[in-house]
Amino acid sequence: MQIRPLRRSDTTLNDDTELANITYNDKYVVVYDFSNVDDDVAIAECQTLLRDIESAGLNTEVRPGYDQSLLVFIQAPRDLLGNAVYKSRVKDWLYGITKQHPGGTAKSIVSADFEAEDVLSMYHLVNWRKDLGGAGITPGYAPWENVAAMFPLHNHRANRALLAHLSKRVFLDVNDLDQIRNLWGSQVAFYFAFIQTYFRSLAFPCVAGIFAWAFLPKYSLMFALVIGVWCTVFLEYWKIKQTDLAIRWNVRGVADVKVNRPQFRYTEEVIDSAGRMRHVFPRWKRVMRQLVVIPFVLVSTLLLGILLAFVLTIETFISEAYEGPYKFYLEYLPTVFLAVFLPYANSFLEDIATTLTEYENHRTADHYEMALTQKVFVLNSITNYSPILLTAFVYVPFGSRVLPLVQSVIDATVGAKHRPNMMFTADPDRLRNEVIALTVTGQVSSAIEELALPWLKTQLKQWWRDRQAARAHIRGDSKHISSADDPAEGSFLRRTRKQALRPTYNVQDDIAEMVIQFGYLALFSPVWPLVPIGFFINNWIELRSDFLKICVEHQRPNPKRSDGIGPWVASLESLTWLGSITSAAIVHLFGTQQFLGQYLGLSRWASLPITVLVSEHIFMGFRAAVRYALLKIGSEQMRLERAERYARRKKYLDELEANGNKCSHLDVVERERRKSVRINAADVFWTKQAELGASADAGIHIIKASKSAQHETAVTGRETKSD
Amino acid sequence: MQIRPLRRSDTTLNDDTELANITYNDKYVVVYDFSNVDDDVAIAECQTLLRDIESAGLNTEVRPGYDQSLLVFIQAPRDLLGNAVYKSRVKDWLYGITKQHPGGTAKSIVSADFEAEDVLSMYHLVNWRKDLGGAGITPGYAPWENVAAMFPLHNHRANRALLAHLSKRVFLDVNDLDQIRNLWGSQVAFYFAFIQTYFRSLAFPCVAGIFAWAFLPKYSLMFALVIGVWCTVFLEYWKIKQTDLAIRWNVRGVADVKVNRPQFRYTEEVIDSAGRMRHVFPRWKRVMRQLVVIPFVLVSTLLLGILLAFVLTIETFISEAYEGPYKFYLEYLPTVFLAVFLPYANSFLEDIATTLTEYENHRTADHYEMALTQKVFVLNSITNYSPILLTAFVYVPFGSRVLPLVQSVIDATVGAKHRPNMMFTADPDRLRNEVIALTVTGQVSSAIEELALPWLKTQLKQWWRDRQAARAHIRGDSKHISSADDPAEGSFLRRTRKQALRPTYNVQDDIAEMVIQFGYLALFSPVWPLVPIGFFINNWIELRSDFLKICVEHQRPNPKRSDGIGPWVASLESLTWLGSITSAAIVHLFGTQQFLGQYLGLSRWASLPITVLVSEHIFMGFRAAVRYALLKIGSEQMRLERAERYARRKKYLDELEANGNKCSHLDVVERERRKSVRINAADVFWTKQAELGASADAGIHIIKASKSAQHETAVTGRETKSD
Repeated sequence: MQIRPLRRSDTTLNDDTELANITYNDKYVVVYDFSNVDDDVAIAECQTLLRDIESAGLNTEVRPGYDQSLLVFIQAPRDLLGNAVYKSRVKDWLYGITKQHPGGTAKSIVSADFEAEDVLSMYHLVNWRKDLGGAGITPGYAPWENVAAMFPLHNHRANRALLAHLSKRVFLDVNDLDQIRNLWGSQVAFYFAFIQTYFRSLAFPCVAGIFAWAFLPKYSLMFALVIGVWCTVFLEYWKIKQTDLAIRWNVRGVADVKVNRPQFRYTEEVIDSAGRMRHVFPRWKRVMRQLVVIPFVLVSTLLLGILLAFVLTIETFISEAYEGPYKFYLEYLPTVFLAVFLPYANSFLEDIATTLTEYENHRTADHYEMALTQKVFVLNSITNYSPILLTAFVYVPFGSRVLPLVQSVIDATVGAKHRPNMMFTADPDRLRNEVIALTVTGQVSSAIEELALPWLKTQLKQWWRDRQAARAHIRGDSKHISSADDPAEGSFLRRTRKQALRPTYNVQDDIAEMVIQFGYLALFSPVWPLVPIGFFINNWIELRSDFLKICVEHQRPNPKRSDGIGPWVASLESLTWLGSITSAAIVHLFGTQQFLGQYLGLSRWASLPITVLVSEHIFMGFRAAVRYALLKIGSEQMRLERAERYARRKKYLDELEANGNKCSHLDVVERERRKSVRINAADVFWTKQAELGASADAGIHIIKASKSAQHETAVTGRETKSD
Repeated sequence: MQIRPLRRSDTTLNDDTELANITYNDKYVVVYDFSNVDDDVAIAECQTLLRDIESAGLNTEVRPGYDQSLLVFIQAPRDLLGNAVYKSRVKDWLYGITKQHPGGTAKSIVSADFEAEDVLSMYHLVNWRKDLGGAGITPGYAPWENVAAMFPLHNHRANRALLAHLSKRVFLDVNDLDQIRNLWGSQVAFYFAFIQTYFRSLAFPCVAGIFAWAFLPKYSLMFALVIGVWCTVFLEYWKIKQTDLAIRWNVRGVADVKVNRPQFRYTEEVIDSAGRMRHVFPRWKRVMRQLVVIPFVLVSTLLLGILLAFVLTIETFISEAYEGPYKFYLEYLPTVFLAVFLPYANSFLEDIATTLTEYENHRTADHYEMALTQKVFVLNSITNYSPILLTAFVYVPFGSRVLPLVQSVIDATVGAKHRPNMMFTADPDRLRNEVIALTVTGQVSSAIEELALPWLKTQLKQWWRDRQAARAHIRGDSKHISSADDPAEGSFLRRTRKQALRPTYNVQDDIAEMVIQFGYLALFSPVWPLVPIGFFINNWIELRSDFLKICVEHQRPNPKRSDGIGPWVASLESLTWLGSITSAAIVHLFGTQQFLGQYLGLSRWASLPITVLVSEHIFMGFRAAVRYALLKIGSEQMRLERAERYARRKKYLDELEANGNKCSHLDVVERERRKSVRINAADVFWTKQAELGASADAGIHIIKASKSAQHETAVTGRETKSD
């Protein structure tokens, strides 16, 4: 198949030289998996695939992949890619994402400003429908169900350099974020911007936490307030920061430009006022369909809540009240039960969530992804937070009533003879232990889950495949594909095959993790004030390890664009809000302070609603004030943008004026015209004082006349009086 | 003074013909009052005034006004005004209010699209600083403290026609609103748009109210819920409507274009990135200064609350519990006391509010006006709503405890002998009566106050002045000014003098009135479900009578522009929110239903916070849902605007392309280039399958090889097994 023999033997390169020379901005790889189809179908599909790609003007090279798969290497000619980038910029301008036409004409060829811009256009060339100028390759969807993956190649050199740079810095500045954007696009960069802003802001609760731990009472009201304030200010700050970055990266409103996802089903075609044919699914219909989420969330909450409550009760009972046989084994039973059952329950619910999101029929892939992640986030929140909520508001306060009940039920079930109800006192430290366990071990275990496990998995997978290949080779199976590798391409192909095996990166999962973490802080801060310190340390590592994770464990992400972290802001706001309720409730129930309601002679429980009501309204008032203040102070980038628009338009105006000609003053002409023409009834009024100074004379005359009249009247008055 | 004698005697016109011929778009009147200054000063000021006006290129005619005042009639030459309108459009475009440059050059002269556009430019020509091209006339502020007023002339014909049209219609459509905008500018038109939208939306609570009155129990939970839902939906709908109108009227973001008010004190001059010199007062400083409002509102609330509570207590005591002497007179005492004292207290607090607003140092007159009106609105809310709040939450529930206390205090004070505490039962219907009294009589009395009283006042004022003038005439005071009127101008001057006497129109007061009305509905709807009907009828009249009021009782408003009703939306939102609390509390306390907390065995009072908490959260959840849905469904005008921008840019692009030239396909060239040039180590990979179909052949080869290998392995496997 190799038509041209290699010209020089020195093209067998070592890694570094190769890395130095290869370009990553104009390459894409498509993985075609033919393990599930027959020869004939595979050959036909492969031919169509290559024809489609080539008819989009792209160059292809085919190499064998692992197992029964093909690696189709795609490269765009300079002119095609440069023009695609140019067209993309024009489209941005057409849709109002950028303010200025990029200049040039339809055949212009431009260099990308940064690598991700080229890669994004590559993605469009490969992925977009044919009528939009792409090859129409949609991995996993008809007609490309057998296309397993489609990804740009990792720029190892840039990855390595940036990782080294990030590891040396404590705080990232906006240039570092720019670099991430340049490499992987704005959607991923926004995640790093968020974790960076969040990480830096965490310094404050850390200090406050140490102070609270050292000097304040347990379950301190003061500390809860400080964290509430911090959450609010952080969020409002982030919103401004996000807008700033969106303007900086020219992506504000970018959701409008996104093309329809292949699964989108439209009900009507309309031609809008700009003459575009649009596939439309009525918005109100989608909103109606989204309403189904409400019962889903309610039922899920109930289900998961009951499951968790049940396990928690049994666990508590066995560890603290049960004294029967097999205690040692029984104690682990609920945890095992949970470990086995929870993933099932979760995946079941996530399946429903996926179906619901599919049913909602979102137009763009981004909206779909967001809608799904939000639902999954709600499920995750329930499993993450309900154990603590149950402990705080059910187990500790009501444990002494519920557990004996459980005991008698169990006794009755197992037919044990009736014993006098044992004295049970709920362990008040349990809440604290629960929070520490869930947050600290949660961070560690998630780091392992995220970083170590996938790495091991990929290593194992690869080892297995390499071994298979080696065995085939040993068996003398000369036809086996990997043995046919050109030695000059060897390392390049090996790296690409490895990348083809990796999963795609979903930035939403990482954001979700951060939001869950933020939730612990917002909801349960007064329980253990040192929690932020753990988060602070974790997040420094998290940022770098997430970067590393993308580099070594995932395919290079398609450099999607977004203008922020989207609905996650709403999630964070809800958590802060909920926090104003739960924090207040925890301080009220566990703290040593006296509360408003108690002064009125109410019990701790009866006065709880008052505390919650007061706390929530303080929070909302404060939030309104912060919002108002930040709105007034405003975003720097927004002001800059406005000033730029002004300057641009002013320049345009000045150019326009330079071409215009100066006119003479009109006054004299007008003055004459005024006296001579159009003396109709209505206008005659305006001709009377047309001479220069006539009005002033008239005015002076009136003033003098009036003043003297006044004087005379006064004199007459006096005279009349004196008469 | 009359330089040109009238040419034809038929120029003595009757009203109608005159009205038909006169133009109102290019006229302005400035009233110079010299009653407080000496001749010399008056003459000097008058000369400066006229010079300033004339040096701005405007024509002047001076005529005597009532008393010691001059009417300076200002008219702009067609060219000057047309150019001012053009420049104003260019400025709008420079600041991004409109999206497209209006075309033309600096000397372009355009016709206004509607009368108010011309009048606004007239206003700018007279009012703006000299360096901005105006005459710098600022009534009431240095150096023009003696300029009493500055107003455009009422276009009676248009007023009359529009009023007749409005009176015939039940609901106004957007064209009617356009006409109001055409006449008086967008700020006033937004008020009419608001009252119209509100009026139409009121139809729903009217129907619901009749239903509730007929079929539901008193203090119905259901009705309270329905009204809460209605308030929320109405508000969100109005917000979209407002944006729609702002886009329709090209005024979105118009606040940015406004010039500095003369009293604005800047602390620094900065040159921004667009090269504009800007006078800046730091925003954070203003925000800090605005914080003073918080203690002010708190103290005012407390003061007014105490005052009202005191009067209410005394009144109740006297009318229901007091049996001593002079009961008849004493009964009116508190009301008299309130009537005397409340205006003082209010005006005292309003003075403080004005000082505070002055201190906040707003940049534009609009912001200042808004900030002041908002403060006054808070004061008005307190005086309007606290009587009902006190009755509902203090008098009815605690009256039986408080009044005997008052009785004993009074007894002790007046030294009456101790009587056994009388049985006092608070009148539960009092709440209802209070609401009916405050709303129904409030509407009637405000109509009188707004319409009849000012009319009477103006009539009296004018009658007095006419009489003075007549007496002066009778006294043979030939120098008296009004006798010097040219008979041809007589009716025109008389009308203008009348307009000069009228107050300026402040649209904020009218909006405030509507917002207060909305507040009654939002806060106290369950008390008396028929209240909306009164409002509905009132508002039909109110819209027309407000229109009439502006026509006959006010100077024609300067056609200011705004992009909505501004912070009133926030006021309405706060009221709706508060409503979710007060309505729930009223239903809870007065209704016959059982509540959540009561099932838990709590008393009615102890369970109140729970009800409030639940109600408020239902409200907030519902609001979030409505907002989300309406956001998704979106604004029609916004979509239209986006489509227009797209179409405009597309057109520009097409023009650009028409000038460009077509290029040939690049593929063949690229394919050759690819094979021949740049065969360096990294690129050699991409040359191997450069021939047409080579990639496909390679793919087919790999598939076949792999499939046959798989087949062989399977066969070998079977063979090995069978061995």
